Amino acid sequence: MTEKRRKLAEDEKFMQFALRMAVKGAGCVSPNPMVGAIAVKDGKVLAKAYHKRFGDMHAETSLLSKLAPQQANGATIYVNLEPCCHHGKTAPCTSALISAGVKRVVIAQQDPNPLVNGKGMEQLRNAGIDVLCGVCESEARRLNAPFNTFITAGRPWILLKVAQSIDGRIALANGQSRWITGESSRTEVHRIRTRLDAVLVGVQTIIDDDPELNVRLAKGRNPIRVIADSRLRIPESSRVLAHKDKKRTWILTTDGVDDKKIGRLKKAGVSVIVCAAAPNGRVDFNDALRRLAELNVASILVEGGGTIHAALLSENLWDELIVAIAPIIIGSEGRPGIGELNLTLLENAPRFKVHKTEQFEEDYWFYLERNVYGNC
Amino acid sequence: MTEKRRKLAEDEKFMQFALRMAVKGAGCVSPNPMVGAIAVKDGKVLAKAYHKRFGDMHAETSLLSKLAPQQANGATIYVNLEPCCHHGKTAPCTSALISAGVKRVVIAQQDPNPLVNGKGMEQLRNAGIDVLCGVCESEARRLNAPFNTFITAGRPWILLKVAQSIDGRIALANGQSRWITGESSRTEVHRIRTRLDAVLVGVQTIIDDDPELNVRLAKGRNPIRVIADSRLRIPESSRVLAHKDKKRTWILTTDGVDDKKIGRLKKAGVSVIVCAAAPNGRVDFNDALRRLAELNVASILVEGGGTIHAALLSENLWDELIVAIAPIIIGSEGRPGIGELNLTLLENAPRFKVHKTEQFEEDYWFYLERNVYGNC
Repeated sequence: MTEKRRKLAEDEKFMQFALRMAVKGAGCVSPNPMVGAIAVKDGKVLAKAYHKRFGDMHAETSLLSKLAPQQANGATIYVNLEPCCHHGKTAPCTSALISAGVKRVVIAQQDPNPLVNGKGMEQLRNAGIDVLCGVCESEARRLNAPFNTFITAGRPWILLKVAQSIDGRIALANGQSRWITGESSRTEVHRIRTRLDAVLVGVQTIIDDDPELNVRLAKGRNPIRVIADSRLRIPESSRVLAHKDKKRTWILTTDGVDDKKIGRLKKAGVSVIVCAAAPNGRVDFNDALRRLAELNVASILVEGGGTIHAALLSENLWDELIVAIAPIIIGSEGRPGIGELNLTLLENAPRFKVHKTEQFEEDYWFYLERNVYGNC
Repeated sequence: MTEKRRKLAEDEKFMQFALRMAVKGAGCVSPNPMVGAIAVKDGKVLAKAYHKRFGDMHAETSLLSKLAPQQANGATIYVNLEPCCHHGKTAPCTSALISAGVKRVVIAQQDPNPLVNGKGMEQLRNAGIDVLCGVCESEARRLNAPFNTFITAGRPWILLKVAQSIDGRIALANGQSRWITGESSRTEVHRIRTRLDAVLVGVQTIIDDDPELNVRLAKGRNPIRVIADSRLRIPESSRVLAHKDKKRTWILTTDGVDDKKIGRLKKAGVSVIVCAAAPNGRVDFNDALRRLAELNVASILVEGGGTIHAALLSENLWDELIVAIAPIIIGSEGRPGIGELNLTLLENAPRFKVHKTEQFEEDYWFYLERNVYGNC
């Protein structure tokens, strides 16, 4: 192995460590990114830190605070996101790194935030610090995909989830859907809920299944519950409206619905967000997602039904799709996991890239993303 | 390793060899089973043989014919199916083995044919030959699944194949279906066609796609083409009716259809088989499959559409199911891969065991069989 390759392998090893630290902030830092940082001198880790909670210290300043005076002098800092150079809720990390006398900063991903976006690296370099960016970049980008989308597209990162039979059904014709996938699959869905800011379902799912949309099968905080309900049909006795923290149950509706019902819901503590309507009378998701982003929702798990999934796919408002397939067949009169797309040409059908498959007991999970070579 | 385990490992090694020989008869021996045989003495293979073609010598007699006089004396014979003891198209293999003076016969699977079914082993044992049965049995049973079903159930072994989008569709609403799965998947389907006796489709598939139902993407013989067409709607210009070997295009229809059309089809060389009708007026598959078995069809690849798959699943007339999933979404107005099953309770939905998954380019293939613990 050449010296250059040996050095790169070492950088990747330490960056993996920084990424593992970053992950500890999952579910707590949004809409900020997850960031981990470690300080290394003479091949030894001096300290490790991560961004713990929205509003708390950034990973870099937290890391420096753990070092003795002068200890950072001559050290290499590994951090998965470019250090900030602007005054936000905290002072710029670049200034702190420069003051501490670090020798080298290794970064996984440039910060897409227009306030930073290369300027952080420039400040470090201007101060004589050796800067390397792009180590474990694809992994870092995947980790902070919600943040990257939120910052660059101005909307939450959207994960669509369909739990279906192998013939693409999520319920019998009579609505029965408990249970198609197994308990391990359902537990994994709860784990995902703890990591994303919000879950979104259509009101028909509330009417049919009366779900709680909280986290019961895993450890972690509940996401915000968002219900798309253009005509405000939600039954006021729904379990989703009975949560203690009603402030985290939000209803997306459109203009012209029953004002008195809005009044009652708001009085009970539920948020009702009146969105623009699409030509078909349903909630306009472009508008709805912009509003959710304004409320600092950086990531959403969309749990169906088929109409919402089809609307988001058609509008190209999605980032990843999970299809969890149970080895069961329901038949064509069952309810579809994806609604109508109104396609007339097969080449216009969305094609995906399978970036991961996983098995949960009897169920097979497909993690799909945009096919960069296709038309989706 | 104990002596007993060493001996078993050796038996398994030689039986694997016999099974590899057996496979060479694929597509040529039906409705007979695929059988391979090898002769071993002092740990060395003396000769190998397999059943080559329906009507030809059985594997065991072919094997003995390759040995010099006296060479079989004291040898061990490995054969994946119990040797026959009845006069069929050839003389009983048991007599030949006894005359040759073999010392030991190792068998993978007992012959389910009522004319044999243990009697072959009994004859060998009565002649003082050491007989061991059950080595690599599950593999042998899977290899000859069509023969086993044909002999025990009196109907062809049925492999259902659905090539679908991840949301369970096999065509757009307008019928466009070329192509959902990729070329590697289609090639594999042609390979399967070479191994099974017949392919079966519904007439709607003929009307929509005008398929040839022959083998073009792989090497091997064409299967018999069977079309389920209860009302004899098949367009007489269909490509499936234009094959040179029209005798291998068969139409399943019901009573009361256009006699003149039957006459024209028969004159052209096509077989028209008038079956009983199910209560819904469609072909009664219990009757149709019995008739196909009488015509020595021991295995069928059913290539859809959704109505036929649903009918066979509902009637429990199936053995394996392949679902080839392309990472594409078509939407709920697309045509379903599986038709209506009229389920009212989720626990009555057929559940499957995934016994293999395979990837062909972008497509994921699921090989499903009856879930012995479930209700399918």
